[in-house]
Amino acid sequence: MTSPLSRRIVLASRPQGEPALSDFRLEETPLPAPGPGQVLLRTEYLSLDPYMRGRMSAAPSYAPPVAIGETMVGGTVSRVEESAHPEFATGDWVVGMSGWQSRAVLDGASLRNLGARFEHPSLQLGALGMTGFTAYMGLLDIGQPQAGETVVVAAASGAVGSIVGQIARIKGCRIVGIAGGADKCDYVLRELGFDACIDHRTPDFAARLAEACPQGIDVYFESVGGAVFDAVLPLLNLRARVPMCGLISSYNATALPAGPDRLALLQGMLIKKRIRMQGFIVFDDYGHRFGEFYQAMSGWLAEGRIRFREDIVDGLENAPAAFIGLLSGRNFGKLLVRIGQD
Amino acid sequence: MTSPLSRRIVLASRPQGEPALSDFRLEETPLPAPGPGQVLLRTEYLSLDPYMRGRMSAAPSYAPPVAIGETMVGGTVSRVEESAHPEFATGDWVVGMSGWQSRAVLDGASLRNLGARFEHPSLQLGALGMTGFTAYMGLLDIGQPQAGETVVVAAASGAVGSIVGQIARIKGCRIVGIAGGADKCDYVLRELGFDACIDHRTPDFAARLAEACPQGIDVYFESVGGAVFDAVLPLLNLRARVPMCGLISSYNATALPAGPDRLALLQGMLIKKRIRMQGFIVFDDYGHRFGEFYQAMSGWLAEGRIRFREDIVDGLENAPAAFIGLLSGRNFGKLLVRIGQD
Repeated sequence: MTSPLSRRIVLASRPQGEPALSDFRLEETPLPAPGPGQVLLRTEYLSLDPYMRGRMSAAPSYAPPVAIGETMVGGTVSRVEESAHPEFATGDWVVGMSGWQSRAVLDGASLRNLGARFEHPSLQLGALGMTGFTAYMGLLDIGQPQAGETVVVAAASGAVGSIVGQIARIKGCRIVGIAGGADKCDYVLRELGFDACIDHRTPDFAARLAEACPQGIDVYFESVGGAVFDAVLPLLNLRARVPMCGLISSYNATALPAGPDRLALLQGMLIKKRIRMQGFIVFDDYGHRFGEFYQAMSGWLAEGRIRFREDIVDGLENAPAAFIGLLSGRNFGKLLVRIGQD
Repeated sequence: MTSPLSRRIVLASRPQGEPALSDFRLEETPLPAPGPGQVLLRTEYLSLDPYMRGRMSAAPSYAPPVAIGETMVGGTVSRVEESAHPEFATGDWVVGMSGWQSRAVLDGASLRNLGARFEHPSLQLGALGMTGFTAYMGLLDIGQPQAGETVVVAAASGAVGSIVGQIARIKGCRIVGIAGGADKCDYVLRELGFDACIDHRTPDFAARLAEACPQGIDVYFESVGGAVFDAVLPLLNLRARVPMCGLISSYNATALPAGPDRLALLQGMLIKKRIRMQGFIVFDDYGHRFGEFYQAMSGWLAEGRIRFREDIVDGLENAPAAFIGLLSGRNFGKLLVRIGQD
């Protein structure tokens, strides 16, 4: 048998500011045959997520950076092509971390096996994967929304934000989204059923957000930062909660913004209003609660109470451009790359 | 019977930056006789606390400002001189909010009655009052220290900080204090039994703090901010907790510090390290748990496991200078004014 090949995208250089296409390189490499306990996987879907920008930088973060010349990391849904693990058979769908490549040999122990027949497998990277899990735990465990409270969601048409808002609606909250552009706001209002959605690109954004939150903000789900957070901060109520899963507006920043320094201002606000701000990384902090999430979300999806939009790009070679677009909000819904046959 | 007189200190003008003596004015006013349900109190001890600086400003905060010409607010221990409330008798010790004055007529319902014989009544404003309660709830409910963790305490020789550290020691933590000056650090180390105490006035403060925290910082109890927080921030561990009860270093600030703007930097740190920062105002947020605190603290004091230092100033007329000194750290221990007879 010939050695299987993997096409893969490696980190060619560390980006300064916004990543460029030249920071990525497409390669083809032979893979070893799977050893005992391993499986050979063919990637079907690759998830593109903002956190990957952090892994491209050498700066210390919550996970080590991707080394130059190494395959970009990423969550994937794949099918088993060859198995040396008793619990996996050829044709099984699996969820794992193959990264930006068309094939991978991985330990079976690192994979979740979905079985041979599986409807809508890409959902395992979205509403039923890290994306939905992030929305669920951040909102419910840190945000603790109560019926009647106002929940504001950054990037409300996005993968995480759209689910945060819909769970908050299920919990009886007033939900106000923030999104970039009229088409996204329209979708958030009409398709997702938010009570309001404010376009952060309009010049009077802060005033319109304040109008949409006449009772102030009790929970703000943060994934953006920057000017969006600046508009939110003065509206936060006594005992507001601010779960934070990301800060996409600053991922490409090469220097801190100009002053004045508002660090102490923020600290003072947290004290005066008894606000809780808390960052989290969902699998690290809540991995033990994945089963609970999966059951709840499966139910809501089946009942049609949560809708989920995917933005699918075809071809591994298009992953870098799609990822660069994600960082500036060009995607509309959960961004996935369909790898296809090779 | 002649109308009783109260000497009182009123807010004469709103301070710009550090309060000046001219921002206060001593007055003498006749008091009405206590109406039904009221008592006439003679103040024995007045508590001076950093939060009072906020009440002198017109800027919105968690409580309305003291109006110009109005008596400065403050917690007090008093004795009943005359009672029109069935549960209070002449000579009873009470805890209340008479403010900066020698006598007050208050509703009995707003007072806690300690009875006629009471040892060490000033402790009701310190270890057994708001001070100790703030330390207890912030450390235990927000900080949630685990045995073996490193707890860093700002203003470690101060009223709140000294108790935070001693409770953390009881919980089996490594405790590192930060204080201003060699005498305070010496006290924190030798009298309070901290594992280390770093003088924030030394030029290599940040390096020495890092040395004293070889395992990083799991809980930082914030009451200072500014350069102290700057040194703490890079040492915070994954899942660190930062209860915040005050920010004394910025109370006299008239403008934000120069840039760059580190607000997003702080947000990013909270996400990468999954840090929880939370402000609290102890009676508003935890008033229902005062009994639990009082019992625990009474036990620790009786067993000698918690020591508490008072810095007592004699004479109501000296309260303004003492308060101005408090804001720059000139006190050494819990600052109280003994009002005395008039």
